[in-house]
Amino acid sequence: MIELRSDTFTLPSPAMLRAMGQARLGDDVYGEDPTVNALEDRAAGLLGKEAACLMPSGTMANLASIMTHAPRGSKVLVGAESDIYVYEAGGASVCGGVVYEPVANQPDGRLALEDLRAGFPDDPEDPQFALPSLICLENTQNRCGGVVLSMDYQREVRAFADERGVAVHMDGARIFNAAVALGKPAAEIVRYADSVQFCLSKGLSAPIGSMVAGDTEFIRGVRRVRKMLGGGMRQAGLLAAAGLVALDGADRLADDHDNALRLAKGLADTVGIEADPAAVQTNIVMFRVTAPGFTWQTFADAAGRLGLAVAELGHGRLRAVTHSGVTSADVDEAVAIVRRVLSTGAEA
Amino acid sequence: MIELRSDTFTLPSPAMLRAMGQARLGDDVYGEDPTVNALEDRAAGLLGKEAACLMPSGTMANLASIMTHAPRGSKVLVGAESDIYVYEAGGASVCGGVVYEPVANQPDGRLALEDLRAGFPDDPEDPQFALPSLICLENTQNRCGGVVLSMDYQREVRAFADERGVAVHMDGARIFNAAVALGKPAAEIVRYADSVQFCLSKGLSAPIGSMVAGDTEFIRGVRRVRKMLGGGMRQAGLLAAAGLVALDGADRLADDHDNALRLAKGLADTVGIEADPAAVQTNIVMFRVTAPGFTWQTFADAAGRLGLAVAELGHGRLRAVTHSGVTSADVDEAVAIVRRVLSTGAEA
Amino acid sequence: MIELRSDTFTLPSPAMLRAMGQARLGDDVYGEDPTVNALEDRAAGLLGKEAACLMPSGTMANLASIMTHAPRGSKVLVGAESDIYVYEAGGASVCGGVVYEPVANQPDGRLALEDLRAGFPDDPEDPQFALPSLICLENTQNRCGGVVLSMDYQREVRAFADERGVAVHMDGARIFNAAVALGKPAAEIVRYADSVQFCLSKGLSAPIGSMVAGDTEFIRGVRRVRKMLGGGMRQAGLLAAAGLVALDGADRLADDHDNALRLAKGLADTVGIEADPAAVQTNIVMFRVTAPGFTWQTFADAAGRLGLAVAELGHGRLRAVTHSGVTSADVDEAVAIVRRVLSTGAEA
Amino acid sequence: MIELRSDTFTLPSPAMLRAMGQARLGDDVYGEDPTVNALEDRAAGLLGKEAACLMPSGTMANLASIMTHAPRGSKVLVGAESDIYVYEAGGASVCGGVVYEPVANQPDGRLALEDLRAGFPDDPEDPQFALPSLICLENTQNRCGGVVLSMDYQREVRAFADERGVAVHMDGARIFNAAVALGKPAAEIVRYADSVQFCLSKGLSAPIGSMVAGDTEFIRGVRRVRKMLGGGMRQAGLLAAAGLVALDGADRLADDHDNALRLAKGLADTVGIEADPAAVQTNIVMFRVTAPGFTWQTFADAAGRLGLAVAELGHGRLRAVTHSGVTSADVDEAVAIVRRVLSTGAEA
Repeated sequence: MIELRSDTFTLPSPAMLRAMGQARLGDDVYGEDPTVNALEDRAAGLLGKEAACLMPSGTMANLASIMTHAPRGSKVLVGAESDIYVYEAGGASVCGGVVYEPVANQPDGRLALEDLRAGFPDDPEDPQFALPSLICLENTQNRCGGVVLSMDYQREVRAFADERGVAVHMDGARIFNAAVALGKPAAEIVRYADSVQFCLSKGLSAPIGSMVAGDTEFIRGVRRVRKMLGGGMRQAGLLAAAGLVALDGADRLADDHDNALRLAKGLADTVGIEADPAAVQTNIVMFRVTAPGFTWQTFADAAGRLGLAVAELGHGRLRAVTHSGVTSADVDEAVAIVRRVLSTGAEA
Repeated sequence: MIELRSDTFTLPSPAMLRAMGQARLGDDVYGEDPTVNALEDRAAGLLGKEAACLMPSGTMANLASIMTHAPRGSKVLVGAESDIYVYEAGGASVCGGVVYEPVANQPDGRLALEDLRAGFPDDPEDPQFALPSLICLENTQNRCGGVVLSMDYQREVRAFADERGVAVHMDGARIFNAAVALGKPAAEIVRYADSVQFCLSKGLSAPIGSMVAGDTEFIRGVRRVRKMLGGGMRQAGLLAAAGLVALDGADRLADDHDNALRLAKGLADTVGIEADPAAVQTNIVMFRVTAPGFTWQTFADAAGRLGLAVAELGHGRLRAVTHSGVTSADVDEAVAIVRRVLSTGAEA
Repeated sequence: MIELRSDTFTLPSPAMLRAMGQARLGDDVYGEDPTVNALEDRAAGLLGKEAACLMPSGTMANLASIMTHAPRGSKVLVGAESDIYVYEAGGASVCGGVVYEPVANQPDGRLALEDLRAGFPDDPEDPQFALPSLICLENTQNRCGGVVLSMDYQREVRAFADERGVAVHMDGARIFNAAVALGKPAAEIVRYADSVQFCLSKGLSAPIGSMVAGDTEFIRGVRRVRKMLGGGMRQAGLLAAAGLVALDGADRLADDHDNALRLAKGLADTVGIEADPAAVQTNIVMFRVTAPGFTWQTFADAAGRLGLAVAELGHGRLRAVTHSGVTSADVDEAVAIVRRVLSTGAEA
Repeated sequence: MIELRSDTFTLPSPAMLRAMGQARLGDDVYGEDPTVNALEDRAAGLLGKEAACLMPSGTMANLASIMTHAPRGSKVLVGAESDIYVYEAGGASVCGGVVYEPVANQPDGRLALEDLRAGFPDDPEDPQFALPSLICLENTQNRCGGVVLSMDYQREVRAFADERGVAVHMDGARIFNAAVALGKPAAEIVRYADSVQFCLSKGLSAPIGSMVAGDTEFIRGVRRVRKMLGGGMRQAGLLAAAGLVALDGADRLADDHDNALRLAKGLADTVGIEADPAAVQTNIVMFRVTAPGFTWQTFADAAGRLGLAVAELGHGRLRAVTHSGVTSADVDEAVAIVRRVLSTGAEA
């Protein structure tokens, strides 16, 4: 099976498994796991923040970040197409008493400044209105096709946030993809955000875990929330050991980007598929099946039967994600399978 | 001062004050206030529901309704321009752990069926998604200009809600305006909703209070939530006495509608004002100042200095609301003031 | 019926009804009701605090106070026998994400300092523990029999709270009873509390409403929460007018205290009743039926059939509360009814 | 260092590390990790429940269980000395809008039936009261010294819960210790509970993870909550592989119990220490330092300097926990260190 549904399917490398077997461990709930501590220091350094904290998932990383920034009853401005709003089960409202205000994502992933501005009431003293406390950006933006937020845009959001006195959180689940795409260090990419989370478990290929980074006081708050949510893990150094190896290999994401572009070109050259290679910036390819007789569902099912796994990602589009488990030969085979499906028909 | 900012400024009539002075009272927290009980029976009957419950405000009426219908962690589909989403301080997320999903309001107040449909995930078993439990409609729709939802549309929403197994709540803060506009009894207007709230304190002119109506089990739940929120009031029969008088006089809302249309025509005939009499269905007139040199704020300030109170209601529009404290002569005077402001300039 | 179940059954006086009929009104949600503003100023002055805010109930007054003081996830130390913990439906956990830590009430209503101290973890950095943010006292303490907290005790709690950096909220539903009992102005009685709520609707005999007082910033927060909970009321000057009259007559609570003592003596002199006149400090009398063949329930039912209403108040005790609707003759008649019930038996 | 602070300090065995290196993995967020699925089936079977679910921690296992059983606004009756109430940061109030009602733990860990009964209001229709929805038991009970709940007691609680229509959740963090102590299969031990959680990471010595078990519908709900809280982990089969090995070795907990008894005897024979071997039922030993000149803190510090780690566990008591990292020789050395500390004094 060529697995293109997500880069969350990446398996740990032999080096990771080796590191896990040799890691020095302690009880991280007591703060005594040396490998976790090393990973947290490493992540903070890579992101240019004061401190960092290991989480069991990106969902908890985002949730704990929102709960630390946003007081009960405040609003968090999020992309209408963001992972936080669409795929995280409403946790900030449930656990935090926080109101989501979804703001349209532009095709390039941005939340337009004027739309952010509209989220702030004219009269902040009027108690009818929940008041914004936080803006969340997503970089790379998944549902917009893995696009990268420009530094200019981020600088504008930072200035706006400062003007309004709110914080900026970066859902950087794939922040190293953004860094590789821009050819800049990750610390540079997230410099305008007060806090950032990234996943060890997507393109970086570690089995489990995400990191939140921010200033010391913020991370202290995140640790409190993490414990309450049940994210305190005992000998978490096992996961951290894999995470450290994963961070060593972040450069290899460039291969995934090459493969995504190769895939997009192959799909664009396929009659019955709509895809735009020019839109591919990282490891995500969005496409539509335009061939008559197919829905995304029947197409995906037929492809699955021939050994290619892809999935829907909103609005009837299909998404293919490249990662460490996908070679350029796999990409070529994936295109071949797509063509075979189209030529055979949905019922085949 | 000609008060057109809102029909919430209505003062109790002499008949209401008299009724308050003579009301039979008890402790309603014990369920022993006979006048409250009479009002609740009356309201339930008028709306064709099994039971009703007095609340201190429409905000609490909506909040308690949402909390009774929607379990923690579920989504409530609301108009992006609805009072519930815009003006109620996010209470359902704070107090209920409920996620608001704002859906675009069409110019006629509707939430398009396809937009409601998009709020339901393809795979309800996938725990990434908060699941909808409730659709909220608003009738008349305030920020769309007091428009009335058609019965055909409501029937469609009902059918859709049944298909998906969710409830429908009607924010009928001005439901009697809708009933008068359609020339139908209120019970007919709300027949497709599982629950409905309306305000005694807007056009009906009672000083304080809103009613929630629904089936017996639902109202039992609403009473529990009301107590928790602090909406249990002691000798509430005082408010109920005024409310009963208010319900007797619902027919007079027709005058407010006439006055609103008269006002809209006057404004439409004024150079420098954009208003559409054809859009006026009830007691709300939306207009814009197009005369050069004015913002809505400078216009409203200048009008205020000349004895006319109007206010902004989103997107830079001004809103004028007619009610029992506004005569047709007041309307003519209001138009005259508008013209005087425009001829004098914002700085006058 | 001699109504001794609660002082919440008090009916508005003719002077209150008159004041309601003549009150100057406005829309208090816009802050424009002059009578509400006058009452809020008056209440703030009486309590020696910077500002005050009208609420529909004591439950909301306490809930909004807790939510304003206590951040999400913090603990509020409350009496295990307090109204806040026992009778307010858990609102602070539901709406505020706040954890109640019930602390034993001593027979004199106090929360022992060592018990408060035990609510604070040794290591506040340890994220296993929710951290206290607020101590709530109740004065007079209802379920301890209307007892008054001494000023010495309150001073100790204040010092402890300052040492730990937490706030003190006073549930002073019957604070004027405490003031009358101690012969001190209310402002003196509440001087050690950061915030205080009292009910207009209990012994003060107004029909509806409670006041929260505190510093300006706190009251601003309370107003925000009030709006969210749905406690913003329109022409609330009607209630405020009655409230102002009620405050004028606070001195008459001394009569209720005399009547309570008279009642306790009468009950103590009754074979089959256990009551302690020495324990009566204000308008509440706790007693037990010790006569064989009775439970509190059968006793209360039988008394009700003879024209005396009393109710259980925890742990099988009965409570009788004196108020403006109860004369000394009523008290004597109440004692007579009690004796008649006991002599006749529960089944009579 | 002889580590007796907790059995959470257990390190994974070589067999666990080997299993982790060879585990078949998938993305468990998609339900596709075969090793996780195997562990969940195994755990469900061991506990005699329909289904089970892997969690990152016992805290989340308890939190998700409570949120699944207990609707917003309901009460959960928990031990005042329970892990859920004391050490889990109030999560059920924060995330679930659930009210904790702490009930005294008897010295043998039980919550007395009459105390549970007192948590239910006489009149469930009275909206003043939050209504219980769940009783939580803890077995073995940590802060009561690792005591085991008898089957007779559990049967009584079950009958009471059925009578009242509430659920029973078992915090069985150390349920296999209870099973070994009683010489019964775990399924037998938890038969009276609707749901149960146990930790792979305590005496069972796996590095990370806890299991929740219950009926299919309940576990479906737990999975939804887990995702929202951020407990969905990707290649969680790594943790599951260790968990499967851990379950194979549950019998070795008997050694920990022997060592705990040996330790308790050694401590009881030490002048200046108060310990009761008869109270030791599993792997936990509670003791006090009675020697003059010591506090628990100075004692623990001095012991730490000599190579023995113990910690306070409430009310000034010290706790020592035996586990796979502690041999009987370690126990003897621990007693020797204790004696050395006492003979040398706190300042040494």
